[in-house]
Amino acid sequence: MKVEPMSDNSGQNFLREAIRLSREKMEANAGGPFGAVIVRDGEILARGWNQVTSKNDPTAHAEIVAIRTACEVLNSFTLNGCEIFSSCEPCPMCLAAIYWARIDRITFAATQSDAADADFDDHHFYEELRKPVEQRMIPVTQSLRDEAIVVFEMWRRKLDRIRY
Amino acid sequence: MKVEPMSDNSGQNFLREAIRLSREKMEANAGGPFGAVIVRDGEILARGWNQVTSKNDPTAHAEIVAIRTACEVLNSFTLNGCEIFSSCEPCPMCLAAIYWARIDRITFAATQSDAADADFDDHHFYEELRKPVEQRMIPVTQSLRDEAIVVFEMWRRKLDRIRY
Repeated sequence: MKVEPMSDNSGQNFLREAIRLSREKMEANAGGPFGAVIVRDGEILARGWNQVTSKNDPTAHAEIVAIRTACEVLNSFTLNGCEIFSSCEPCPMCLAAIYWARIDRITFAATQSDAADADFDDHHFYEELRKPVEQRMIPVTQSLRDEAIVVFEMWRRKLDRIRY
Repeated sequence: MKVEPMSDNSGQNFLREAIRLSREKMEANAGGPFGAVIVRDGEILARGWNQVTSKNDPTAHAEIVAIRTACEVLNSFTLNGCEIFSSCEPCPMCLAAIYWARIDRITFAATQSDAADADFDDHHFYEELRKPVEQRMIPVTQSLRDEAIVVFEMWRRKLDRIRY
């Protein structure tokens, strides 16, 4: 991970916009202090900010909101050629969403440990995901695998399937 | 992880409903072959199915859709007291969302390795999240931490903040 100041000034401007959103929307009681912007070809395509508590949506993190908005703008379920700038290191949910969206590059300001100091569970959840299933906090049961994989086999044979 | 058949028949019925959704909605071209239901007090509170390609939303996995719907139903950003039944082991995005939603228990049918066999990146993304940042596929840069943590300090001092 590069921790040097970015030489690219426009990159710093995009990150500052994410930080500005984190503050403005927190002050407006949208949710936690997190902002993100998605950029393509040097322009902001979408802005996102945390709306967990105002929208009653635990998935409405800044990055998720920005990804959904950018995909709406582009009418596409992938964001190849886009970068994301986030006021804080993405939590595991948002990081995996960034992978699913096929975003090219991530730039963030505060770290998951800074988020932990502000009472957010990002770091703890990273640790949980690294543990073997049986050692995790939430109990997990598996069953009926045979019935589910029949549907995967149908998917593999589906001629008009759209991969993602 | 328990891999024995569940003794609780209603649990199997909920899991079968998730599998049924995975098939029905895939056949209707909503997206990939994945379904989920969220249950509270023995009743289905919300159903979700993959809608990535039909909604142009890379975050519209079955579990995320079910969580958002259940929170809407309950008018709450947490799902304490709820269980999730998913036709497949949740990907890291969905697993972290389950943690953020404070769901009590997870039951799934197919595994992340079955999903990989059907050409989905779940297993690969689990491996990526376990790697140190500098070894990951997507390049990551950090900058402007000092500016971002000022906002976290404001959050800590905010008297009317709603924690999640």
